[in-house]
Order: sequence, then structure tokens, then C-alpha cells
Amino acid sequence: MRVFVTGAAGFVGSNLVDRLLGDGHEVVGYDNLSTGQEQFIESALSNPRFRFVRGDTRERERMAAEMAGADVVCHLAANADVRFGTHHPEKDVEENTLATFHVLEAMRASGVRRIAFSSTGSVYGEPEIFPTPENAPFPIQTSLYGASKLAGEALLQAYAEGFGFQTYIFRFVSILGERYTHGHVFDFYRSLRRDPARLRVLGDGRQRKSYLYVQDCIDAILTALERASGRVNVFNLGTDEYCQVNDSIGWICQHLKVAPALDYTGGERGWVGDSPFIFLDTARIRALGWRPRLSIQDGILRTLEYLERHPHLFDVR
Amino acid sequence: MRVFVTGAAGFVGSNLVDRLLGDGHEVVGYDNLSTGQEQFIESALSNPRFRFVRGDTRERERMAAEMAGADVVCHLAANADVRFGTHHPEKDVEENTLATFHVLEAMRASGVRRIAFSSTGSVYGEPEIFPTPENAPFPIQTSLYGASKLAGEALLQAYAEGFGFQTYIFRFVSILGERYTHGHVFDFYRSLRRDPARLRVLGDGRQRKSYLYVQDCIDAILTALERASGRVNVFNLGTDEYCQVNDSIGWICQHLKVAPALDYTGGERGWVGDSPFIFLDTARIRALGWRPRLSIQDGILRTLEYLERHPHLFDVR
Repeated sequence: MRVFVTGAAGFVGSNLVDRLLGDGHEVVGYDNLSTGQEQFIESALSNPRFRFVRGDTRERERMAAEMAGADVVCHLAANADVRFGTHHPEKDVEENTLATFHVLEAMRASGVRRIAFSSTGSVYGEPEIFPTPENAPFPIQTSLYGASKLAGEALLQAYAEGFGFQTYIFRFVSILGERYTHGHVFDFYRSLRRDPARLRVLGDGRQRKSYLYVQDCIDAILTALERASGRVNVFNLGTDEYCQVNDSIGWICQHLKVAPALDYTGGERGWVGDSPFIFLDTARIRALGWRPRLSIQDGILRTLEYLERHPHLFDVR
Repeated sequence: MRVFVTGAAGFVGSNLVDRLLGDGHEVVGYDNLSTGQEQFIESALSNPRFRFVRGDTRERERMAAEMAGADVVCHLAANADVRFGTHHPEKDVEENTLATFHVLEAMRASGVRRIAFSSTGSVYGEPEIFPTPENAPFPIQTSLYGASKLAGEALLQAYAEGFGFQTYIFRFVSILGERYTHGHVFDFYRSLRRDPARLRVLGDGRQRKSYLYVQDCIDAILTALERASGRVNVFNLGTDEYCQVNDSIGWICQHLKVAPALDYTGGERGWVGDSPFIFLDTARIRALGWRPRLSIQDGILRTLEYLERHPHLFDVR
């Protein structure tokens, strides 16, 4: 099939591109390289079935022209940082909500009618049911990131009803693995590399979090695209376990053979809008035959090994 | 108190302005008069406690300056038309989602921290539970209108968590009464005035709908602002009954003493994204002591009487 991938040079996007090319598909990658990195698509660029377009999702007409003929759009371009929403609310609105709208309008203009979208478990806010199913009670948003992604989901759904689009909405837990460049594990690893004697931890370290290995995430997306036939398909993606922030610190320290003094900022939440407990019910995607291959701990170790092999990633930021 | 009302010259907005002035409050009304009508604020304009600003919600800095010192913002400016979303998706995104974002940012800039927002029962999509409570299962959006309002709700909630705002979200059924200028009853009345012999009905006429009289709606908003003290307060607003489109046609025809041939376009839905059944659970707002004074039928009759007294409304459109 022909796939148009936004955020193609990003963490999940570039892994998806490589997988699609490996599976024999044709791929157009679209990325403005604001956070995406050219090195992530280096090998893809040497593949004749790959075409890269450096462009922004705001360039709606250009995007429409570039995606014409695609069987499906995988819209992964986003501001993926949950934490700094209150520093710049505009960023989530523009790069998540409006970018998604531009992608949908480009699809309408170019006649592409199938879209996969990276949403987030953050749309559940602080749920009362764990593991949290897709049809949990109507949530209250607690972050600009979650709000902006929920708005994106809502637009996809309205386009499904209004314009006959077929939509795939994936509510991710935190994704880990090769090319991972932001989040807990990245921050902890970078900090311990600089100073193995101490580690600053946001919150009390007892926040319960979920992680999924990026290749498992991509398996799930491709499984859903192949096997789910509804007009609006919503899937939680995660493993069937969670861990405390303290657990992941323990694994990281063990791996690095360091024993830092832990300096907790305190409180149940690491920052305003941080969710103290994320654990998604993945029965729906499992019912399609998907299973994650790596546990959270293995995903974290795989990530650390990748970061060790790519120390230059820490220079970029 | 001092109240800043967006959409102040609109249907619900102008009624709210009049009520607030009648109760002795100070009001700044903000409206771009795109669908609002100056005649609706004629009497308000003669009140020294009212100030009108003709402005657009996109003018964020101006709005911030005008709302400075307000105790609460009532954000009622919106594209209130559910039906034509697919004709111009941009309209819902800009006039509902982005307008709400601009209002929130203006509040942040001016230090106002309390906001009431007119959302809609359409955010429930096609729910499975009737009457539908505020914590119904996580919905799937079926209209651009609902999607754009849900995005507005989500932003309010994120601002509550991120910036300490206190937010009041009201999910309206269709509102009726004085200054009502669009929707079922308006369309039917206008059509029968032109041609009492026949009436075109979108869908099969068996869609079950809910209506609320505008003064009851305003009572509910003011009751919630006075008595609900949470950070995020979400309320369904409606009566404890619903009617079929055919019922309202019957009441209108009886009132007008006409017996048109009914020409149904057919189907369970009147248009793409039309919800065949809207009936909201209002136990939460009732628990604050609020009760609607008019039944749906009385609300429709009150509306017809108003339309009869104001035939010029039909010239405007």
C-alpha cells in the first residue's frame, strides 16, 4: 500500500517508516524537522520506495498534493511533550489540534479517506477505573496536551460521520525504544550521565506509569489497520502492567551501576497536569490478536542500550 | 458582580444580558454582530450598567483589555448551527474551538479566572444511555459542531488544572424562546408562513429531541454560578422530557390552525450528524435546586408567540 506519514522523521514516525518500507510498502514521509531528525530517516532515504518532503502541516495545499494517491495517512506529527503545556498553550492547540484539522482537510481535498492518529492515554485525565477502557466515563481533561489530542480525536470522528472517513485512533501510553528522545527515561539517563551521584525526581516517585516498546506500538497500529473495519476505531495501546517511577529509576541505576541520592520534589504529581496513575485496558486491541513482545522493564533496558549507542542525541538538545 | 458576555447580541447572550442587568449586575457585552442582532440589545444599551463592545473573539488583546476587572466571563459566542458543519468545517473550528481558546487566553492575560461556557448535548454523539448523564461513556463525535464544542470543553478543563481557572460547562439541549432565530421551530414556522399547505420535514419526523426555554436555561446558569463550587463544573441543561419532531409539528400546526401535507425526506436522521435521540439527565443541576418552569410544549408555544410578534426576523435571513 501507499502510506503518507506525517512526523516521519520523529521517534514513532521514523520507526513506522522503516517498518513499512521493510514490509514492501511505498511511503511518503512528511516532516518539518522541528523536532524530527534527519538521521532517523537516513536509511529510509536510500530506499527507492521512500520519498521525503520537508513540509509543515500548516501548508495544507502542499500536503494535499503530496498525499494524493495514498491509501492511508498515518498522522504522527505532534507536539509530543505533555509536560510544558502551561508554558505555551498555543503550541498544543496549533501543533496537535489545528495540525490534525489541516491533515483532515488535506485528505478531503486529495480524496484520501483513511487515517491513523496517535492520540494519548492522557485524554482520560485522572480516571477512576483501572485498567482504563476506551469507553471509560466521559473524562475531564487535566492537561493541554490531552485536551489538544482529544480535540484531534473528535475531529477525526466528525470527519468519519460527515465525510465517510475511516479512522483509527490510538491512545498511547508513553512509548519507549530506539530513537526515543524525550520523557522520563531520557531525562533520568541524561542526568545520571552528567552526575551519577544524585538524581532529581519530579513528584514523590510513586506515580504509576505505563510504557510500551515502539516496535510493539507499530505492530498494534498495523494490526488494527489490517483487521479493524469499523468507521471509527479507537484503541488503547499499552502493556498489561504498570510500574512506579521509582521502579524505572531502580532499573536504570542497576543498568548504569550507579547509586545516586534521590532528590524528590514531592507531591503526588510530577508537574501540573501530570497523571499520577496511567494504566490502560488493552483488551480491545488484544482481541485482534496483538500482543506486546517486551515488558516495561525490557523496553526500558532496550531504550538505555540505544541511548548508550547514540550519545550525540544528548548534544542535539 | 461584573460580567463579560461574549455573543452578547445573540439569542441566549442577549437574554442573559437583560437578566443580569435586571438583577443589578454590571455587564460588558462583546459581539461581532455576525449573527447577533443590535435590536436584541436595544434595551440593554439604555442601561448605564451596560457597555457594548463590537469586537471579534479573534482580537485577543482587545478582548483582554475589555474584560479586565470582570468577575466572570460568560462565553456564549459561537457558531450555533449544528446542521451545516460539513459545508464549512473551518467555521466550527474557528468560531467554536479557536474562539474559546482566544477567550481563555484573554482571561489569562487579564487575570479573570472564572468562566461559564455554552456547550451542547451534541458532545454525547449517539449515546447508548437515556437520559444521558454527564459521566456517560466516553463518546464518539458525530458532528463537527459537537467536536468543536468538546474541544472547547477540553480547553476549559485544561485551564482549570493548569491555571487555576474555575469553569462552568453547560451542555445545552436546543434552546427556545424570545429571540430564537434558528432551528426546527423557526424553520417550520417560516415555511408554514410562506406555504401553509405543505411542510418539508428532514428525516422521518420520529427523531426524539429535547428543548429548553431560554429563561430556564439562564436560571440554570445563574444557579450553577451561585451554588456550584468545584473547579470544573459540568451540567446538562434540559427538561425531564423529550418530544418527537412530529409532536412539535403538531403543536405548531395546531397553534397556526394549519394542516399541511407533510413531505418527509426520510431516514432516521434529518441530516449527516443529526442525532436521532437527545435526552439529557439533569439530576446534577436539579440537585442545586433548579427546576425548569416551562414544558417543551409551552416553550414552543412561547417561541411561536414571539415569532408572531417579530415577523421582521424572517427578513434578516
